[in-house]
Amino acid sequence: MAGFNTARLDLHGPKLQNSPMKEKLRYGIVGSGALGGYYGAKLARAGCDVHFLMRGDLDAVRRGGLTVRSKDGDFHLPHVNAHGTPEEIGQCDVVLIGLKTTSNAALPALLPPLLGPETALVTLQNGLGNEEFLASHFGAARVMGGLCFVCLNRTAPGVIEHFGHGTLSVGEFNRPPADRATRLAAEFQRAGVEAKVVPSLITERWRKLVWNIPFNGLGIAAGANVEQVLNDAPLHAAARALMAEVIAAACSRGCAIPADFADFQIARSWPMGAYRSSSQIDFEAGRDVEVEAIWGEPLRQARAAAADTPRLELLYALLKRLVAFSVKR
Amino acid sequence: MAGFNTARLDLHGPKLQNSPMKEKLRYGIVGSGALGGYYGAKLARAGCDVHFLMRGDLDAVRRGGLTVRSKDGDFHLPHVNAHGTPEEIGQCDVVLIGLKTTSNAALPALLPPLLGPETALVTLQNGLGNEEFLASHFGAARVMGGLCFVCLNRTAPGVIEHFGHGTLSVGEFNRPPADRATRLAAEFQRAGVEAKVVPSLITERWRKLVWNIPFNGLGIAAGANVEQVLNDAPLHAAARALMAEVIAAACSRGCAIPADFADFQIARSWPMGAYRSSSQIDFEAGRDVEVEAIWGEPLRQARAAAADTPRLELLYALLKRLVAFSVKR
Repeated sequence: MAGFNTARLDLHGPKLQNSPMKEKLRYGIVGSGALGGYYGAKLARAGCDVHFLMRGDLDAVRRGGLTVRSKDGDFHLPHVNAHGTPEEIGQCDVVLIGLKTTSNAALPALLPPLLGPETALVTLQNGLGNEEFLASHFGAARVMGGLCFVCLNRTAPGVIEHFGHGTLSVGEFNRPPADRATRLAAEFQRAGVEAKVVPSLITERWRKLVWNIPFNGLGIAAGANVEQVLNDAPLHAAARALMAEVIAAACSRGCAIPADFADFQIARSWPMGAYRSSSQIDFEAGRDVEVEAIWGEPLRQARAAAADTPRLELLYALLKRLVAFSVKR
Repeated sequence: MAGFNTARLDLHGPKLQNSPMKEKLRYGIVGSGALGGYYGAKLARAGCDVHFLMRGDLDAVRRGGLTVRSKDGDFHLPHVNAHGTPEEIGQCDVVLIGLKTTSNAALPALLPPLLGPETALVTLQNGLGNEEFLASHFGAARVMGGLCFVCLNRTAPGVIEHFGHGTLSVGEFNRPPADRATRLAAEFQRAGVEAKVVPSLITERWRKLVWNIPFNGLGIAAGANVEQVLNDAPLHAAARALMAEVIAAACSRGCAIPADFADFQIARSWPMGAYRSSSQIDFEAGRDVEVEAIWGEPLRQARAAAADTPRLELLYALLKRLVAFSVKR
C-alpha cells in the first residue's frame, strides 16, 4: 500500500477517506493514559512507528519505557518514542486520541503540529460529540472514531494494567467506512487487538451508551457496582428503564437498535461481577468524570429529536452536580 | 364538653369520631424526639395533661425537664410527665405519634397500653401509609393525622431548637373531619400552635409531598440544599418535573391539586435559602431516612393508579440504595 501522504488532497472531499495508504503508517498518540498507552503499546510492540505525546508520565517512560500487565500476557517496551510536545512529534498519518473528553478544549492547540494534509484523526473517546468537536476544528474529512471495549487502569507512570476485553470498532464520522478504516483495523489485528470496521459509527456509539448511561451513571449516583445494580430490584429496573430510554433516543436519531438489545446488555453484565466503570472509579477517586460526553450530549440529542428521556434527564442533573462538587481540583 | 371516655362505643362506627369530648384531654406522646417533644411541650405549657413516652432522653428530662429554644420565645418546663413505658402512662384520650416512620414496626407493641375504647391516634409522621398502618392494627375509626410544617432540631437530651414555622393541619383518616378534629385544633391554637382542620387529610399529604419528594430527595441524591437546587438549572428543572409527576399522581388518586401548585411551591422555596430538609440532615449524619413513607409508598400508589412517574421511580431506587448503605447501624 502506498501514500497516505503522497498527494495533496481536498480535505473535505471523498478522496481523503479512500486514498491509498503508504506502507508504514506514522502514529501519534494524544492522551497517553491507560487507553492511549495500551493501544499505542500494542501497535509499537508489533513494530509500528508510534509516537506518544506525554505530560505527567514523560520522564518515567523515557527512563523505563512502557509496561503492560495483562491477562493476555505481560509485556515491556524498554524504548518508546515519548515526546513532550506535538512539535517534537511532527506530522503523523494517524492520530489516536485517548484524551479524556473533559480535556477536549486542549485539542485545538495540541493537534495542528501533528497534521499533514491527509492525517486521520481517530477519537477513541467515550460518548457523543467528540467527532463533531474534531470536525468543527479540523474538518469532517479527517475524522474517524473508534469504540474501545476494554478494562484498563494506569497503576503507575508508564504502567498499564489490562483487566480484560480489548476489542476496537472503527468507523468513519457520518460516512460509511472507507479503505483507511479497513487498513487501520488490519493494523490493529496484526498487533493483537481484536478490531473490526463498523458500518455506522454513530449507531455503535449509541449501542455502547445503552450500557454506559445506566451502569456508569447509577454506579456514581447510587454508589453501586455492576452486580449491586443487578441484584437490587429497584436499581435493576431503573437500569432497564434507562436502557429503554437510550434505545428509543437512538432510534429517534435514526440509529436503529432493537428493543431486546437491553436484554443482551443485561445478560452480558452478570459475568462482570463487582466491576466498577471507569466513571465510577474516577468519581470515587475525586477525578473528573465525562458527564457531558456520556449523559449531557446524548440527552441534548434526544431532546432535539423529541425523544422522551425523563430518567436520563434526572440522572444527568444529579451527576452534573455530584461531579462538580466532588472533583478535587 | 364531656366524655371522650364516657361510653363504650363501636370502634368502627361513626360515633367515635363525633362523640363529645371530656373537658380535659389526656395526651400521650409517642416518639418524643424533636416533633413530639415540641408539640407536647407547647400543650404542656398551656396546661394540658401531657405524658411523654421516652427512651434515650428519659433520665435527662426527668432531671431537668424540657427546653424549647424558639424564635417565638424560649421556654423551659422544669417538670414534665416523662415515662419509660406505655404501661406507666396508661390510657389516653389522644395519642400523638411523632415517631420516625422507619420505627413504625414498634407501634403495635407500644400503643395498646395507651388505648381506651375511644382513644384517638393522631400520626404527625411524614409521607404516606402511616394512617393505613395504624388502621390495620388498631381500627380505622381511631385514626387521625396531622401535617406539621415546622423546622425543628433536637440539639441535646430534652432540648429542642425551633427554627421556624410550626403550623399543624389535622384531619381524619379517609373521612371528613369530625368534632374531635375541631377540638384538637382548638387545643393546639390555645397552646400557641397555628392549627387548622383540613377537609381531606390525604390531599394535604400529597400537597406536602409535592415539596418533600423533590427537595428532600434531590437534597440527598445530589447533596444540594434548597437554594443549590433552585440555582442549578438542571436540578431546578428536575425538581419541577418531579413536582409535576407528584401532582399528576395525586390527581390520579382522586386528590385534586392544580398544576400551578408547583409554581407556588417553587416560589415559597426561594426564601428558605440554604435550608436542608430533615431527610438530608439525617442522611448526612448517617441516620435513617424515611424512604418508604416519602418516596416508596407514593410511588406504589402512583403505580396502582397507572400514573406515569419515571423520575420518582429512579429517585426512589437511588435513595433506597444510598440510605441503606450509608446509615450507621
